[in-house]
Amino acid sequence: MADILASLRSLMASQSPPLDALLVPSEDYHQSEYVSARDKRREFVSGFTGSAGLALITKNEARLWTDGRYFLQATQQLSDQWKLMRIGEDPPLDVWMSDNLQKEAAIGIDPWCVSVDTAQRWERAFAKKNQKLVQTSTNLVDEIWKNRPPAEINPAVDHPLEFAGRSVAEKLKALREKLSSERARGIIITALDEVAWLYNIRGSDVSYSPVVHAFAIVTLNSAFLYVDKRKVSSKVSSSLQANGIEVREYGAVSSDAAMLASNQLDQATGVNFGQNGVCQNDTCDNDLIWVDPASCCYALFSKLDANKVLLQQSPLALAKALKNPVELDGLKNAHIRDGAAVVQYLVWLDKQMQEIYGASGYFLEGEVTSKKIPETMKLTEVFVSDKLEGFRASKEHFRGLSFPTISSVGPNAAIIHYSPQAKTCAELDPNSIYLFDSGAQYLDGTTDITRTVHFGKPSAHEKACYTSVLKGHIALGNARFPNGTNGYSLDILARIPLWRYGLDYRHGTGHGIGSYLNVHEGPHQISFRPQARNVPLQVSMTVTDAEVITNRIRKFLFPEPGYYEDGNFGIRLENVLVIKEADTEFNFGDKGYLSFEHITWAPYQIKLIDLSILTPEEIQWLNRYHSKCREFLAPYLDKNEMEWLKKATEPFLFISLLPITSSLGYHCSIHLLLGIWWPHDVIGTPLTLNFIAVDEGMKTSAGGNR
Amino acid sequence: MADILASLRSLMASQSPPLDALLVPSEDYHQSEYVSARDKRREFVSGFTGSAGLALITKNEARLWTDGRYFLQATQQLSDQWKLMRIGEDPPLDVWMSDNLQKEAAIGIDPWCVSVDTAQRWERAFAKKNQKLVQTSTNLVDEIWKNRPPAEINPAVDHPLEFAGRSVAEKLKALREKLSSERARGIIITALDEVAWLYNIRGSDVSYSPVVHAFAIVTLNSAFLYVDKRKVSSKVSSSLQANGIEVREYGAVSSDAAMLASNQLDQATGVNFGQNGVCQNDTCDNDLIWVDPASCCYALFSKLDANKVLLQQSPLALAKALKNPVELDGLKNAHIRDGAAVVQYLVWLDKQMQEIYGASGYFLEGEVTSKKIPETMKLTEVFVSDKLEGFRASKEHFRGLSFPTISSVGPNAAIIHYSPQAKTCAELDPNSIYLFDSGAQYLDGTTDITRTVHFGKPSAHEKACYTSVLKGHIALGNARFPNGTNGYSLDILARIPLWRYGLDYRHGTGHGIGSYLNVHEGPHQISFRPQARNVPLQVSMTVTDAEVITNRIRKFLFPEPGYYEDGNFGIRLENVLVIKEADTEFNFGDKGYLSFEHITWAPYQIKLIDLSILTPEEIQWLNRYHSKCREFLAPYLDKNEMEWLKKATEPFLFISLLPITSSLGYHCSIHLLLGIWWPHDVIGTPLTLNFIAVDEGMKTSAGGNR
Repeated sequence: MADILASLRSLMASQSPPLDALLVPSEDYHQSEYVSARDKRREFVSGFTGSAGLALITKNEARLWTDGRYFLQATQQLSDQWKLMRIGEDPPLDVWMSDNLQKEAAIGIDPWCVSVDTAQRWERAFAKKNQKLVQTSTNLVDEIWKNRPPAEINPAVDHPLEFAGRSVAEKLKALREKLSSERARGIIITALDEVAWLYNIRGSDVSYSPVVHAFAIVTLNSAFLYVDKRKVSSKVSSSLQANGIEVREYGAVSSDAAMLASNQLDQATGVNFGQNGVCQNDTCDNDLIWVDPASCCYALFSKLDANKVLLQQSPLALAKALKNPVELDGLKNAHIRDGAAVVQYLVWLDKQMQEIYGASGYFLEGEVTSKKIPETMKLTEVFVSDKLEGFRASKEHFRGLSFPTISSVGPNAAIIHYSPQAKTCAELDPNSIYLFDSGAQYLDGTTDITRTVHFGKPSAHEKACYTSVLKGHIALGNARFPNGTNGYSLDILARIPLWRYGLDYRHGTGHGIGSYLNVHEGPHQISFRPQARNVPLQVSMTVTDAEVITNRIRKFLFPEPGYYEDGNFGIRLENVLVIKEADTEFNFGDKGYLSFEHITWAPYQIKLIDLSILTPEEIQWLNRYHSKCREFLAPYLDKNEMEWLKKATEPFLFISLLPITSSLGYHCSIHLLLGIWWPHDVIGTPLTLNFIAVDEGMKTSAGGNR
Repeated sequence: MADILASLRSLMASQSPPLDALLVPSEDYHQSEYVSARDKRREFVSGFTGSAGLALITKNEARLWTDGRYFLQATQQLSDQWKLMRIGEDPPLDVWMSDNLQKEAAIGIDPWCVSVDTAQRWERAFAKKNQKLVQTSTNLVDEIWKNRPPAEINPAVDHPLEFAGRSVAEKLKALREKLSSERARGIIITALDEVAWLYNIRGSDVSYSPVVHAFAIVTLNSAFLYVDKRKVSSKVSSSLQANGIEVREYGAVSSDAAMLASNQLDQATGVNFGQNGVCQNDTCDNDLIWVDPASCCYALFSKLDANKVLLQQSPLALAKALKNPVELDGLKNAHIRDGAAVVQYLVWLDKQMQEIYGASGYFLEGEVTSKKIPETMKLTEVFVSDKLEGFRASKEHFRGLSFPTISSVGPNAAIIHYSPQAKTCAELDPNSIYLFDSGAQYLDGTTDITRTVHFGKPSAHEKACYTSVLKGHIALGNARFPNGTNGYSLDILARIPLWRYGLDYRHGTGHGIGSYLNVHEGPHQISFRPQARNVPLQVSMTVTDAEVITNRIRKFLFPEPGYYEDGNFGIRLENVLVIKEADTEFNFGDKGYLSFEHITWAPYQIKLIDLSILTPEEIQWLNRYHSKCREFLAPYLDKNEMEWLKKATEPFLFISLLPITSSLGYHCSIHLLLGIWWPHDVIGTPLTLNFIAVDEGMKTSAGGNR
């Protein structure tokens, strides 16, 4: 590690101008959420493996900024040479630079790894002290990185129309119309999922996301794909060509961006695809180049004339988020198969917990005295999550996981981005809550689901917390809202039941999900803060409905300043929802109203629900959801699994005597709710209910849902 | 009217430079919500009496921009010479100017009537076509306004400490500390309620708001009040003097602002008040002048060196919003007396509706065939609202209304800012909804309450709407939320029950309320849009909880393009709430949690409530609220009124069998809710309820709240 910093510093000194500092961010050339092994430069220099962090190396110091999710992990992983900078507690980068680095310092970055937004923000901040952001001509980390993993040549594949639902020609036509309307003559596309979506291709260059390392440039007349040509088979090549897309080497994007700026790209290629998008009207006057400042790297932006750049969110972000009917069908099918895998996993786990640990199991509430299990029989967080992956892998169209499975017992469940490691992870515990947040990539859709379960006797407090999370989950999913509503307006619906107890969670509530693409997808989201990219929720968008409680926060005061927080369990429930038109009785303001449709199917654990804090409406919703679980998952389950699911989804008996008007002419309303979670083995036993009120003339109506 | 425009145009032509256009806004020199008669310049030139609007007079045209509340009214009031510009439908002012007015046009404004924010926004917009905003040296409307109401000399009075709760010395000290911390050496205060609050004075220069037409300038060493000196008695003068406040003529603020800019104001006066705020440390280097861009007029801002101005929300806005304990006590007391007046009004109105119109009344649901009432007996919207004012006027500390009473029958209730006029207003109707939104100024507090009632047989649809509004009203009032939460996050709680049916309302949900000051007070609010002035809700702020439904919007298509909306009733419920610390079980994130306390007391009409869509929790809340109404209002009501109130606040009988665990070890939960609004004359009759379930061994617990 000492070698790395020494080598870097010597390289920094040899630059022209010599660098006083070097910034090493976590991102790759495409600002990806998940990056390939050879792009983990920040991890290589610092030793810190978390997903988010920014490393700064000066002549004498090395500092790493990261957020609250990673304080503990970074403390453990960083060597003495590094100082951890806690975001939210320590000064942010720009303030630290201004306070600690000398005037006119030269601060190096690899402009391929930094977005336009970030680079410009840094430039403005550093300018206060005449410090200068210097773009290095090579990546200094790559130069000193011995044994850097080699580039893999993973094939790009066509994503067929039966899953994509919309042809490349249609997508290009819509994109070019958008370019014209914004007076742009070309766009540089750098986000990997946008390239994959636009050209209907997929790959395996990055874990968890089926994308190809590639750039794209689209003009009013031409379209280019920049990719290692060895990845492109002749079959893929010919379908690209059929859509007028020219394949060029990955590195050529740099010079082509410059050609695009000087309006020579189309001429240079001589490409003219006739009716397939040729500019034939006065929009030929368009002279802007469209660049998304949040995803485009500073290197490519720097090739352009800044006065002729349209810095605006990529039009593909919204186009990709609005799922077409084929994608929606695929997503729904993928989620049914995925739900079946989750149920199979629960059935298996329930059995294991009873047999190995003597737990009372998924349905019963019994306490177990912890016993020592032989090493070979132990169920660890990683062992069981591998089993879950196995159930998914057996399903049609499975292509891998969509993110590292979070499989967490007790206190680990309170760590939001917990990622168990085989050697160090915890063992399952019949007396603790177990949370799993997982998803997969299927050819027809990407999934993401979280369930929280208990195989022993949950405490009243755990039940109250689970039920509060469930209330938020239901309230958000049941919302109807007018067109134009942003995700931040809805966010509070998930929190209100938690806030009642002074509980909360430190992250947003919902994100979009891709169609066999990224598991986290914008441009919309459901979060407590209004976002810079304020895209209203729209019909056919996907969004997750996830609420977490990380509980119970205890605050210990030590002789030294500071405090220690310890969580003893975590609860999260997460479904994927699709936005659709709501069938409301009225349509005030002619805006049109929207609602959500759940497409994730797996039971909530009834044992963890405190019925006394659910409303009749919430109980009815649960009954309906559980009944659909049985209906949709049945074709994928065997007899034993289906028996288990039936037990897990028993409806709450519900009798309602609706309002009546008494003969006295008074408005007299009787509302009787009988919510019973009936022990499954007395199902079928008749329920006798006698009800006598003073007004014997009252008409009553009674009905149950079974 | 033709004369007015002709005179104005001739005056415009005589200016240097000659004006191509003149903008006449609705605001006075202080950007007040309610202005005095002599300040209604926009109304004088256009004939349009609505509260919001902007008039533009060019050489050949006259146009008036106003919003949806006033489209109908403006159409009726504007003469042929004027063209109505509908905000949201027609081009906004800046676009219209750019499209229709020639390049380099000179556009006049009186800089005293335009805020810094607005003037700068216009300047930027007009610059696109090199059009220029010209500040006229006099107000051109005033020059041609024959018979302009004279300035009234209304006395300023001390607002005693027993109501203000905080001395002027304390307020000045806190203000000067704030100036120091922001490196300011002075502040120009132009908002009338801020001047009144800071100096603990009140007046009667403006209807509905007990303020004095005045400016203030406060420096680190001095304090000035600019006011017509004839309004200041020697008593008031000496108490001002005791606090180091120098009284100067209203017009002197202009030259004093210039003196302040050149740092000569303190020297010129030689005022030095020793320990009462003298600058004694290095903050004497402070060289900024603080100006609130939303309330300060462009005229005063123009006297300053723009580079030395701190354009930021006035610190008095938040200071005034955080009510002190004396103000909170006063507000609570004022609201109890005000609630008693509202109940007395309802008792009186109930009797009148039965006697005159043969209505079934507040409690019973009977249909009445409308009958012709002799003119002298008719209950009109204005007649009954005068009666309501009478009940308020009989209460201690009454000083007038806090805004024009909205007293509206049927379709009129759907007009949000309906203001009935004696000659044209509607008659009460036993078959229609009646909405009244009203409030008063008391020495110890300002009030604002809305109730919606029906004296005949409401339709099921009206009940569903009323109940949805009530659900939103309860949900917002019951919210608990962490410190740092903004009003826009909470807004949706009031809307969700309406959105369910595709219903909504076109305005925000809550506003702050003053302590014997403005009925609408910032800087916080509860609205669906994040505000530029994003102030989180804080302990001891006041806020209203008002939701409206304006129903039923029907859309008729005509042969000509366009559509016609007709509302047939409106529902609103509005209480004043105080923000306080919430006693939550946990305190996640150590942020501290907040909740609301209702301080308005008047019953909701039970006849309009559809119990079947209320949750057990909502019913319990209603019972508790109604029980407090009886407790708090009793001292102010006579026997007959108290009998009526008891009837109106009968609790819903509530029996709850809480969750139990059966002997089988299964979690078995029984939740039985019996919500009966019991006909008042059978209260006391025993209720027989037999309940037999299959598990005879179950323990049950039962309890009602009376």
